[in-house]
Amino acid sequence: MAAKIKSALLGASGYSGLELTRILERHPRLEKPVLLRREGGSEGPADLAEIFPELSGNGGYPLRALSWPELKRQGVELLFLATPHEASRSLVPEAIAQGLRVIDLSGAWRLKQEQHRAIYSFQDADAITAAELTEKAVYGLPELNGDCIAKAQLVANPGCYATSVILALAPLLKSDLIDRGRGIISDSKSGVSGAGKAATSRTLFVSVADNFSAYAVFNHRHLGEMVEQMGLDDTELTFTPHLLPIPRGILSTIYVQLKRPMKPAEVESCLRDFYADRHWVRIFATPQLPQLQFSLHTNYCDLGFCLAEDGRRLVLVSCVDNLLKGAAGQAVQNMNLMYGWEEREGLQ
Amino acid sequence: MAAKIKSALLGASGYSGLELTRILERHPRLEKPVLLRREGGSEGPADLAEIFPELSGNGGYPLRALSWPELKRQGVELLFLATPHEASRSLVPEAIAQGLRVIDLSGAWRLKQEQHRAIYSFQDADAITAAELTEKAVYGLPELNGDCIAKAQLVANPGCYATSVILALAPLLKSDLIDRGRGIISDSKSGVSGAGKAATSRTLFVSVADNFSAYAVFNHRHLGEMVEQMGLDDTELTFTPHLLPIPRGILSTIYVQLKRPMKPAEVESCLRDFYADRHWVRIFATPQLPQLQFSLHTNYCDLGFCLAEDGRRLVLVSCVDNLLKGAAGQAVQNMNLMYGWEEREGLQ
Amino acid sequence: MAAKIKSALLGASGYSGLELTRILERHPRLEKPVLLRREGGSEGPADLAEIFPELSGNGGYPLRALSWPELKRQGVELLFLATPHEASRSLVPEAIAQGLRVIDLSGAWRLKQEQHRAIYSFQDADAITAAELTEKAVYGLPELNGDCIAKAQLVANPGCYATSVILALAPLLKSDLIDRGRGIISDSKSGVSGAGKAATSRTLFVSVADNFSAYAVFNHRHLGEMVEQMGLDDTELTFTPHLLPIPRGILSTIYVQLKRPMKPAEVESCLRDFYADRHWVRIFATPQLPQLQFSLHTNYCDLGFCLAEDGRRLVLVSCVDNLLKGAAGQAVQNMNLMYGWEEREGLQ
Amino acid sequence: MAAKIKSALLGASGYSGLELTRILERHPRLEKPVLLRREGGSEGPADLAEIFPELSGNGGYPLRALSWPELKRQGVELLFLATPHEASRSLVPEAIAQGLRVIDLSGAWRLKQEQHRAIYSFQDADAITAAELTEKAVYGLPELNGDCIAKAQLVANPGCYATSVILALAPLLKSDLIDRGRGIISDSKSGVSGAGKAATSRTLFVSVADNFSAYAVFNHRHLGEMVEQMGLDDTELTFTPHLLPIPRGILSTIYVQLKRPMKPAEVESCLRDFYADRHWVRIFATPQLPQLQFSLHTNYCDLGFCLAEDGRRLVLVSCVDNLLKGAAGQAVQNMNLMYGWEEREGLQ
Repeated sequence: MAAKIKSALLGASGYSGLELTRILERHPRLEKPVLLRREGGSEGPADLAEIFPELSGNGGYPLRALSWPELKRQGVELLFLATPHEASRSLVPEAIAQGLRVIDLSGAWRLKQEQHRAIYSFQDADAITAAELTEKAVYGLPELNGDCIAKAQLVANPGCYATSVILALAPLLKSDLIDRGRGIISDSKSGVSGAGKAATSRTLFVSVADNFSAYAVFNHRHLGEMVEQMGLDDTELTFTPHLLPIPRGILSTIYVQLKRPMKPAEVESCLRDFYADRHWVRIFATPQLPQLQFSLHTNYCDLGFCLAEDGRRLVLVSCVDNLLKGAAGQAVQNMNLMYGWEEREGLQ
Repeated sequence: MAAKIKSALLGASGYSGLELTRILERHPRLEKPVLLRREGGSEGPADLAEIFPELSGNGGYPLRALSWPELKRQGVELLFLATPHEASRSLVPEAIAQGLRVIDLSGAWRLKQEQHRAIYSFQDADAITAAELTEKAVYGLPELNGDCIAKAQLVANPGCYATSVILALAPLLKSDLIDRGRGIISDSKSGVSGAGKAATSRTLFVSVADNFSAYAVFNHRHLGEMVEQMGLDDTELTFTPHLLPIPRGILSTIYVQLKRPMKPAEVESCLRDFYADRHWVRIFATPQLPQLQFSLHTNYCDLGFCLAEDGRRLVLVSCVDNLLKGAAGQAVQNMNLMYGWEEREGLQ
Repeated sequence: MAAKIKSALLGASGYSGLELTRILERHPRLEKPVLLRREGGSEGPADLAEIFPELSGNGGYPLRALSWPELKRQGVELLFLATPHEASRSLVPEAIAQGLRVIDLSGAWRLKQEQHRAIYSFQDADAITAAELTEKAVYGLPELNGDCIAKAQLVANPGCYATSVILALAPLLKSDLIDRGRGIISDSKSGVSGAGKAATSRTLFVSVADNFSAYAVFNHRHLGEMVEQMGLDDTELTFTPHLLPIPRGILSTIYVQLKRPMKPAEVESCLRDFYADRHWVRIFATPQLPQLQFSLHTNYCDLGFCLAEDGRRLVLVSCVDNLLKGAAGQAVQNMNLMYGWEEREGLQ
Repeated sequence: MAAKIKSALLGASGYSGLELTRILERHPRLEKPVLLRREGGSEGPADLAEIFPELSGNGGYPLRALSWPELKRQGVELLFLATPHEASRSLVPEAIAQGLRVIDLSGAWRLKQEQHRAIYSFQDADAITAAELTEKAVYGLPELNGDCIAKAQLVANPGCYATSVILALAPLLKSDLIDRGRGIISDSKSGVSGAGKAATSRTLFVSVADNFSAYAVFNHRHLGEMVEQMGLDDTELTFTPHLLPIPRGILSTIYVQLKRPMKPAEVESCLRDFYADRHWVRIFATPQLPQLQFSLHTNYCDLGFCLAEDGRRLVLVSCVDNLLKGAAGQAVQNMNLMYGWEEREGLQ
């Protein structure tokens, strides 16, 4: 086996960062990853197990201050960023300038079109470099953009909602089976870890438990990447996210009108053919539907569907674990493609 | 104040039955209700507190075997049925023949059109009487059918999902603002008590907790009453129920296309005007949306909406407590109308 | 019926405050309560329904700045404080000086012994008045201190954990049946609302869901009031609170050694006799035990027990809704006693 | 590396069985395990993924009817039983007669003393063989009985509650630090999967959610194995199990009186020294306590403690995942010892 790769991770203290740490440290192609914190000096916890006591007893997870020369000295060639988008926006130009390959889990580099980027209000120090990197960045959905990811220096790891929606619709859109003029609707539901680890009154236990609510209707940050990646007009997709009283997982219920009456077997074939060689998408045969629980703690995106008797109204159901296929798992899947490894490596 | 009315309830041992028992015993216009069990003889528990220990300490809830002569002797004039639809289908003809007024919480008498009734596979002993009662039964949605309910001998209390969907759409349909040809979609989510109290592997804690799933897509029993009551063609409404990991409550996210571009204020007016005199529907002004939690343990149906910038794509959000406005509370609201009482009586 | 009483409430924006608001506005002996906020001027929300949208549609809950002259002008004679203990410590002397009767839900005035008060680090502006009020304050556990409460000007409403523990042990301690030298243990479990509404990482949904933990072992603030009220030495009671992944409710499992072997019927009699005339304590006969759910949304304290075959080892189970019998409900029960009303008035 | 071992598993359709299947199929020392069902013929599902759709997409999990000759033909040498105790009681004699080594996850073979076995009401076809096997069976707690397990033909895998309690107390009992005469109390709380997969009204979502309850006080099946393994008299241990509204995990809060006043550092040393060479027990230094969540989805038993200021009253907190360290994980740990492999093999 070839020599192991050295990687580093900034942002291990978040929910996705924790998952990523766990996967990276067991990945057979990697040396133990360097865990970074942004703050210089001696501030902050010295070990990730101080933040996540569940990591105790495995030899320690030291956190080191980010230093480009030090990363170079250690032979790090790949950097994962599980940081807020503002941080990613300012760190990625530096990292790329250092010659590192970067997989960024934030929304900083996903959007190609300016009208979609507006929602993030980026403040770039160097607008020209930012524009170049925006151009260069590859949207890291392995099942769609595998070839580009393999060669990418900067991978923009997709949003969790976007992953669940795009993977469900891509086969049908590619085959031009959807009557886009009738509109596409994704009614999506996410567990609370999707909202991040900051303490807000909205994500308190008492606010979420025994509750359910819609939010950011017509206005969610992931909407832009969905329409860009699927080549839709902005008004063709209606996306409604909801907050589920569970820690993790996303289920999207997606409504489309088909251009012509189809049979369930045809729809199933369309999905199966599209993902024939891909390990991390599972197709459920009608009438069985995936449940959110099936994909938890895995890197799978599970897809199922129901077709009305009229053969035109199609309901798709798509499930992912927002922290894995929707974040850390997909980042590792992207790494596997970037280094030419089998795409399930380290993810089972 | 006029003399109090005598009522009886069959089916108090279910989730809705328990709620109904609690409301009826505190209702200022009623004497303590007679609680019935179907089995004759001395079988079964003698007191409802044996089934629901939370009822202890309030003087007892004796369960008596159903006997028409005995009900007459006690002066009972109103019967609530919180029984499975098969039981309601066979008991209602008897009760009506006895001269009782009946509020039935099951799906037995809600459907006027035969093609929608098929899903229930009713086995009527006397088809002619059944047809007459089907004709006579009033669909008990007080905000829409108040006049008929006032005079009804048999009220078919609506399904919980149907209540949430119809109340959201009725104002817009009445004003002919919806482009029905584009299809109406209700993506509805319900707590587990909606599935009843029978022990099934699907409703076990471990099956539901940390999970979320769609079920009965294109095929749910409440679909028929929705299209009948809203005057839609069967293909105009797509209804997808989901199971939420919470004990109670329904939130429906409803998608329609408006016939002409509207402004949020117009939509809000349409809703407010329609429910101007009704206590049990609350309208939330955009951008505030109702959350499922707001209506729990109340008889409210909470309605809110978001309108896309194009002024055409409208998302409605509708919340009810499935055991109250979706069942027991609505039954009492119906009773209030049947007896000419204020509709919030006993429900606060 | 006598004229209705005017009351005011400061602190309605917390979980207990919301419950208290709901009870007070429906209490048959009270006019609609005046809701106060501490901040002067026009800051903060003008109506409680802005904080709790579930209150919409009931005519408004205006919040007014606290002003002693204004309260006097309105004829308010009773003040409820659902404020943090620091606020209660400074406000109560003012309120008492105004001639108001006060029911304080915080820990500010519960403790008689200085060594127990230390944990709160009170900063009194006027130490002499504070000492006098400490002396004067009545610990508001209605089942034990009814006579004193009736005459009290200042009632210190008990802690939620303390309520569950003291009510379970009082009958046995009173009858001197417990071998105190062997130690008394209360292993108590509380829903998350007991931790208050502040956004902390500890009370986030993801921190609490699918989790369970002990905290503040040997060190909880309610320990002092328990030993004081039960007349125990500090080392005779071991109290371990835990955080349950539910919004509300407390269950305490309490372990004692009896001085002599007893029979279950004797234990049951001891409990029943002690609470013979009290509505808000329910005794469950062995082998039936109360479950936390039974007392939710009620003002009951539910008590049950199991006795070992040796007749000496006794396990008591005690359940309360921490926001009702453990806070707002008990406050109203205290008010009922203070005004000579029936103790269940307004609480059913 | 040596040739891989062939194993078989009966009972994969339960919660523990599913976990065991997942571990065994990835264990580096094993060939893919043979999954068995008890029923002969063609009844029942042909593949475990029909029961657990989350297993889809991994090449199939065929279920075969149990046949001793067939197992022999395939070279199976180790049999896991995740069956009800009645089934284990009748199958183990057959399996042992076939020369298989057996790890039984039920309570069938854990108890040495007849008075403790009574609670199971075993009906043995061959009482002599049953007595011999009872004698021969090794209680499979690897941290205590490692040497015997290495040589065992029949390992009785411990109960989940028993694992959490015994591992917490063993170091202190071994060092004779506990005043047993004062009694030992374990107040234990378990997630719902501990109650198994059968559909009962007690384990329905609506029965468990927002609830908490004690059960089987003084009367739980695991009590016998605890006192036997710890060498206690029956009256020295009080054990109260509770049902937590979470899918999995156990936290035991254990109360003991020390024989002499100790310091926290001494208690910590006692625990650390006892488990110095063991990977699967983690000690938390006071004041940090383990939370149930830390050990979920791992094979760890996490131990922590608080010592009162008097140095005598000690509260221990012990957490395990009931399906892993409390069942399937421990079974694999036992297998590792039986075959001389490193005890963390296959479990990380």
